[in-house]
Amino acid sequence: MLNRSRSDTEIVLAYIGGGSLNWAQVLMSDLIHDRTIAGEVRLFDIDNQAAQRNATIGNRMSEAAGLSIRYSAPTNIDDALIGADFVVVSILPGSFDDMAHDIDLPASMGILQSVGDTVGPGGYLRAMRAIPAMLAIGRAIGEFCPKAYVCNLTNPMSVLTGALYAAFPAIKAWGECHEVTKLRKIIAWLANRAEGTDRFGFHDVQTNVLGINHFTFVDRAFVGGRDWMPDYLAFAAEHRSKGWRPEPIDQTNEFARLYEDHNQVKFDLAARYGIAAAAGDRHLAEFVPQSWYLDRCTDWGFALTPVDWRRRDRIERQAAAERVQTANTAPTPRPPSEEALVAQIRALTRGDVLVVNANMPNTGHMEGLAPGTIVETNVLFSGHGIRPIRAGRLPAAVEALVRPHADRQNALLAAVISEDAAALEGLFLADPLVAPIGAERASELFRAMIAATAKQLPAGLADIAA
Amino acid sequence: MLNRSRSDTEIVLAYIGGGSLNWAQVLMSDLIHDRTIAGEVRLFDIDNQAAQRNATIGNRMSEAAGLSIRYSAPTNIDDALIGADFVVVSILPGSFDDMAHDIDLPASMGILQSVGDTVGPGGYLRAMRAIPAMLAIGRAIGEFCPKAYVCNLTNPMSVLTGALYAAFPAIKAWGECHEVTKLRKIIAWLANRAEGTDRFGFHDVQTNVLGINHFTFVDRAFVGGRDWMPDYLAFAAEHRSKGWRPEPIDQTNEFARLYEDHNQVKFDLAARYGIAAAAGDRHLAEFVPQSWYLDRCTDWGFALTPVDWRRRDRIERQAAAERVQTANTAPTPRPPSEEALVAQIRALTRGDVLVVNANMPNTGHMEGLAPGTIVETNVLFSGHGIRPIRAGRLPAAVEALVRPHADRQNALLAAVISEDAAALEGLFLADPLVAPIGAERASELFRAMIAATAKQLPAGLADIAA
Amino acid sequence: MLNRSRSDTEIVLAYIGGGSLNWAQVLMSDLIHDRTIAGEVRLFDIDNQAAQRNATIGNRMSEAAGLSIRYSAPTNIDDALIGADFVVVSILPGSFDDMAHDIDLPASMGILQSVGDTVGPGGYLRAMRAIPAMLAIGRAIGEFCPKAYVCNLTNPMSVLTGALYAAFPAIKAWGECHEVTKLRKIIAWLANRAEGTDRFGFHDVQTNVLGINHFTFVDRAFVGGRDWMPDYLAFAAEHRSKGWRPEPIDQTNEFARLYEDHNQVKFDLAARYGIAAAAGDRHLAEFVPQSWYLDRCTDWGFALTPVDWRRRDRIERQAAAERVQTANTAPTPRPPSEEALVAQIRALTRGDVLVVNANMPNTGHMEGLAPGTIVETNVLFSGHGIRPIRAGRLPAAVEALVRPHADRQNALLAAVISEDAAALEGLFLADPLVAPIGAERASELFRAMIAATAKQLPAGLADIAA
Amino acid sequence: MLNRSRSDTEIVLAYIGGGSLNWAQVLMSDLIHDRTIAGEVRLFDIDNQAAQRNATIGNRMSEAAGLSIRYSAPTNIDDALIGADFVVVSILPGSFDDMAHDIDLPASMGILQSVGDTVGPGGYLRAMRAIPAMLAIGRAIGEFCPKAYVCNLTNPMSVLTGALYAAFPAIKAWGECHEVTKLRKIIAWLANRAEGTDRFGFHDVQTNVLGINHFTFVDRAFVGGRDWMPDYLAFAAEHRSKGWRPEPIDQTNEFARLYEDHNQVKFDLAARYGIAAAAGDRHLAEFVPQSWYLDRCTDWGFALTPVDWRRRDRIERQAAAERVQTANTAPTPRPPSEEALVAQIRALTRGDVLVVNANMPNTGHMEGLAPGTIVETNVLFSGHGIRPIRAGRLPAAVEALVRPHADRQNALLAAVISEDAAALEGLFLADPLVAPIGAERASELFRAMIAATAKQLPAGLADIAA
Repeated sequence: MLNRSRSDTEIVLAYIGGGSLNWAQVLMSDLIHDRTIAGEVRLFDIDNQAAQRNATIGNRMSEAAGLSIRYSAPTNIDDALIGADFVVVSILPGSFDDMAHDIDLPASMGILQSVGDTVGPGGYLRAMRAIPAMLAIGRAIGEFCPKAYVCNLTNPMSVLTGALYAAFPAIKAWGECHEVTKLRKIIAWLANRAEGTDRFGFHDVQTNVLGINHFTFVDRAFVGGRDWMPDYLAFAAEHRSKGWRPEPIDQTNEFARLYEDHNQVKFDLAARYGIAAAAGDRHLAEFVPQSWYLDRCTDWGFALTPVDWRRRDRIERQAAAERVQTANTAPTPRPPSEEALVAQIRALTRGDVLVVNANMPNTGHMEGLAPGTIVETNVLFSGHGIRPIRAGRLPAAVEALVRPHADRQNALLAAVISEDAAALEGLFLADPLVAPIGAERASELFRAMIAATAKQLPAGLADIAA
Repeated sequence: MLNRSRSDTEIVLAYIGGGSLNWAQVLMSDLIHDRTIAGEVRLFDIDNQAAQRNATIGNRMSEAAGLSIRYSAPTNIDDALIGADFVVVSILPGSFDDMAHDIDLPASMGILQSVGDTVGPGGYLRAMRAIPAMLAIGRAIGEFCPKAYVCNLTNPMSVLTGALYAAFPAIKAWGECHEVTKLRKIIAWLANRAEGTDRFGFHDVQTNVLGINHFTFVDRAFVGGRDWMPDYLAFAAEHRSKGWRPEPIDQTNEFARLYEDHNQVKFDLAARYGIAAAAGDRHLAEFVPQSWYLDRCTDWGFALTPVDWRRRDRIERQAAAERVQTANTAPTPRPPSEEALVAQIRALTRGDVLVVNANMPNTGHMEGLAPGTIVETNVLFSGHGIRPIRAGRLPAAVEALVRPHADRQNALLAAVISEDAAALEGLFLADPLVAPIGAERASELFRAMIAATAKQLPAGLADIAA
Repeated sequence: MLNRSRSDTEIVLAYIGGGSLNWAQVLMSDLIHDRTIAGEVRLFDIDNQAAQRNATIGNRMSEAAGLSIRYSAPTNIDDALIGADFVVVSILPGSFDDMAHDIDLPASMGILQSVGDTVGPGGYLRAMRAIPAMLAIGRAIGEFCPKAYVCNLTNPMSVLTGALYAAFPAIKAWGECHEVTKLRKIIAWLANRAEGTDRFGFHDVQTNVLGINHFTFVDRAFVGGRDWMPDYLAFAAEHRSKGWRPEPIDQTNEFARLYEDHNQVKFDLAARYGIAAAAGDRHLAEFVPQSWYLDRCTDWGFALTPVDWRRRDRIERQAAAERVQTANTAPTPRPPSEEALVAQIRALTRGDVLVVNANMPNTGHMEGLAPGTIVETNVLFSGHGIRPIRAGRLPAAVEALVRPHADRQNALLAAVISEDAAALEGLFLADPLVAPIGAERASELFRAMIAATAKQLPAGLADIAA
Repeated sequence: MLNRSRSDTEIVLAYIGGGSLNWAQVLMSDLIHDRTIAGEVRLFDIDNQAAQRNATIGNRMSEAAGLSIRYSAPTNIDDALIGADFVVVSILPGSFDDMAHDIDLPASMGILQSVGDTVGPGGYLRAMRAIPAMLAIGRAIGEFCPKAYVCNLTNPMSVLTGALYAAFPAIKAWGECHEVTKLRKIIAWLANRAEGTDRFGFHDVQTNVLGINHFTFVDRAFVGGRDWMPDYLAFAAEHRSKGWRPEPIDQTNEFARLYEDHNQVKFDLAARYGIAAAAGDRHLAEFVPQSWYLDRCTDWGFALTPVDWRRRDRIERQAAAERVQTANTAPTPRPPSEEALVAQIRALTRGDVLVVNANMPNTGHMEGLAPGTIVETNVLFSGHGIRPIRAGRLPAAVEALVRPHADRQNALLAAVISEDAAALEGLFLADPLVAPIGAERASELFRAMIAATAKQLPAGLADIAA
């Protein structure tokens, strides 16, 4: 639509990884709530059966809501992409077995990881597996829908959004992540408390975001006519030693027990550095040496990644999806999510003015990080397209934590592209979770991890283990 | 207000040049229409009487409208600035006599200028006169209200906004100009025509702006769900040879006869370069060699600067203001202007999200121009403060016209600061209106112009004529 | 040799354009004088007969001198390049007819050119013709001898050296030009005069070079223990109005009459800008508006380009070469030239430390010009390879003259590569020799020049004239 | 001399720290050997008695050698600097007690340091102490001898050379260090061994140097007509596990036992990263996590810093100097040192062409590190002045080790200048020797170290401990 000569009311959206049991279903529900977007959604997945299932469910929901959104599940990616106005990329790089190795092998050398999908040894191997697939997707977009807006939802987000740009530099892509929402909610809570009201929601809080995905910071949080950052920093200092959350974790909910935190890492970093860290504690902890938080994660109020839980969760979700498919009724849409994707599509299509954080190549809008680095800052979504907004610069001491990760992510991507085994090993050694075990043991670990996931790697990289 | 620890409803605004007979009165009227902004407006002017007059008028208008805006006219700039939340700078560098020399001396060497306030010999000398004053204002802001938002309305805008940043690099300043509005109106007209409607106004047109003040370009114009740039370029090509305007110039109105154009230069540039030039023809013509447009300005449908008219106009305005003052009644506010200033203040104060073009130092958001150059691109005004938005890059052939001006403006500012007479003369010679007369005659002209305005220059610069 | 695993004493040099009647013969003579370089010289030329002739002459000279340099004339470029340690590129882009059009068509519009091979309309068209050939040579080097050192002797030097890097970014190429020698000789003359001696030659003068080819400047000239720049500037000011040369031009020598100058342009620029211009007056004059020097070139002591003379000269040289070939004797080598090439080869081969000006991509060593611009500054030739040396920055007023040319050269190269006709026409218009004739006439001229040389252009560019 | 209007044969050299018992005496001896440099050497020291002693000794040596070098010991720094052509800065930041704290306090937290003067907690505190003094020296140079060439010999070299530039940006300063000589000697040894000769000394080896002081790398080592880097890397791999040195360490020599190494760290890094590390092992080990080398330094063949030895050594040197002073005879000059300083002076004075590694602000010549970072690369010393030479870029994995140190050094300098206590603490935490002990303990350590050296710090920094 956007790229045709005349305005009309329909878009074509290609969803790569459209068999997803989570994100695709969030999108389908959010489109129901939005009601302004019409057109065609093509769900492509290497598991076509899963995509078909989602298409069936989607079409039923769309019909039930009286909307003209049509879902299909093409069997090859070219058919999905050709002429698309929007592309969503949400793939799973490797299997749960691979993810288990990402965690277990480092653990056997004493390296703890709470998520293992961004940095640290787990994030590193995950990137090595996913980059080749992402490069292929980027090239296909360049060929079949070069003017499409492309939203990447896949982790490790920085490296993989970078891969899209490396494959097709003129791509109009951004990486989308909701972690900053967590901080915006706390700020809204503080503003409400001060006013004795509940009028502010996280959408009302204008945060200036700086950093890289999952290691983002906020230096300004404006709501109700003023900046609440000083209040937040005071609050963080007050609750630094025990943490805080608006309501206690529901201990009967396994997901909550495993995935929620009480902001103690967030507060500790804020108190130490004078700026708010924005992501969840499980992510933040992985960017600094293990001795800071991970070594005593229970004391800091968060849990380590349970690959096992993900396996069970997936089985449950799959069974649920199959039940819905069989039932031959339209499922009730989920409540509106907190994801920004549908609002972004609307802004790009209709000219709404939306300012929200997203991951894009640094064009200088984030001072202190290298040009081209995938940075997470505010981006303007509107009739102007997607345009990064000047973010400024992190305080020196925080930049000293962030920049080395960002530089290694850039170098990792380049090294996978050039299949530079020596660089890949050397960069792995320099990660702050890896470096302390010593260069020699880190080299061993790297080769063991490569060997464990060799099937998922291109030959040139799998050879490293040999 | 913005910089205090707690939100409240009042702002303090210092207006430097507050005796102005035009801009200050526009602001006073626009504040009446806005009705959301309260507080104190301090009108400072070296002509305190004029400022007093404006304050009197403003207070009457404010009271009549039932608003709590209070106007005062402090006699020194420090009192005006101390603790200000906003500063507006709108000064007149030199007298009308100086402006007459800016035009007449070059004319005596065959150099024609349609405005003479931005580039060309006139803009150059005007900059030399105004920079020292602007540096002083910038330093005072750094001392008395370092966190204030500062809006510069003074021409030559690029150089003078640069002077504010040179004097106080942490300043939060932008240069404000309405020229791009002209293009947005044409786009709205095109969209309305296509739809057979009149629903679009210039505010609905989202233009992506690139360039430097008065030599700005637009590569995307989104309204009603799509980009109208291809339509505009076709329209420009169609009307390139004769020009076009929605309604004829009112020939009984001297201002209109002298200041309006029929977009022929704008269309010629668009047809030639495949991108829309945004400013008025009188401005655009001065950035290219005289042989392109100025030599035959009548054929191109615009007039040369009439300093004489400005003199008469000023006398009329002053008389009018005096009548209002004497009348002891509150004048009717002017209709809402098309200026963005009040909307900008509101966005910064209340967190509205406003995207509009403004002049700020290049932080990399305008590719192809040097860092620090004062560029005109879209800027986000909101609770985030003032933040430039990624604009992209001009086509190569347009950049080849724009960049030399931008570089010379940067160098001119630096040369005035360091009182580098040799650089000042050399840079003058390289302006495209000056260069063709030959280096030797250009040197003569430069010295003559310096001599004519020597009283307005610091000793170190006035000496050049010696 | 340099790229083999073990040192030995022989090099392989490929000379593209090896049928040359001038440069190739200079090289052959200089190798005789050097006596340290041995190996194989492969003369490739699209005129294989001319290359064969040079090979025959070269082998005779080499044998007569008792040297083991072997000349051959391979019939295809791949055979010439494969395994080469050094490549010299000296080609003639287009015919003398093309060169005549480069001069005559602009002249018919009133544009004068003294050389027409660098900037101005002539240099521009010459670049358009030569870039495609140069790109092909660069790609072939990347394939057949990627580690070779590559010396480009072809004009327009900046653009064409840039083309080599565009085709093969890892190339180790520099552009070689002797114009700066002219200034070094004057400095040596000044130092000798001051000392009452003749001990200094141009090799003893250490000049710091800044700029782009044929528009280079020198801000320091060290010899005999001190910097002579202040003396030079005083001398230039003294002789600005009438020029000066150490001995009068030999009026009986047509070449001298046509190609020599008396430094008046050089002195005028030096006096005006406080820095020494380094190239010959005929080159310098083309970089500034015609009204500065070209309009009255006789008064300024230099002549316009005589294509006709070049035709006659070529016929004479060719006849001479044929006579030598027929004579079956070894010709006497020419006296050692002032060219740096052989010394550069020796430095790279043996580790001599040689600092001399050359044209290479700006890596930041020339402040104020864009990264990647082919700049002319000092370069270190040694066992370290070819490495640019920090040059510093031009004075602002000179940068204002140089930078626009440099930016247009970069943009011209990019536009030829992408076959962007609109950019090519727009950039042509902005040249200071072209701009004053008006945009419309300049467009006409551009199309006429394209038409005249269309056979020499790739189809995508030749179409512009259609 | 260099800055006077006419060449003459004498220089004025100001030596800040001229009471030195080591470096000043090296210089005095090297000047004897050189015999081409004449003039005045002003030894300034806060211990004027020590400077007087050196002046006395220097004058005797100069006279005995028949040279016209005159030594004096002015009592204030302004008198030393005024009109100087050269300045040498070699000061001791703090006392041996301070240095002991630099080592002992971290050791009490388990942090080992082999030198403690560059990075790690020791280098950090040393920088904090020295920067204010260095800024004062830089400002004085700007005032009293702005055109002087300035050689800094003081550690931590990167930060302190940066301080000179921060204080006076137009300074012509470089930091001088001999560590790379160690690698050049090994290369010469390899080349000699291959040829069965001893003709190559380290001066014959042309190394391309990249990195920051004490963490420098070499990617090319040219001698005898070819690059020996592949041979070196093979040799390093061969001797990686046990180390190697041309001759065994003299175990009877305490200095040798404490300060010498057998290149095992150097070889391990070379084998791991495919590029030669250039500095001594004791320095290299401090730039990577302790688990790599420092934890088992005996196994790796090097010793930890013995402050105690330095105390004893100083006492011995002082006694020796006093004996010489008393003896009233001219001491025999030391043999020519391997320091480059005198050759640098000669090159700058006479126009010799010298290429040698030195520490200067990055002007883009070292890709991958921030502009302005003090980098160690080759620099041209000649009649052109001091000019960095394009070095290129480190391999990605090595850059990942180097860049974070370089960035922290830049940030440390800025934080001391702005007295930003929060930044100073945060940056301290991120050093790879500090980070693994945990943020909380690292903060404690920082405060303890500040407290211990508080007397040597400006009040604004000493307060951090409060």
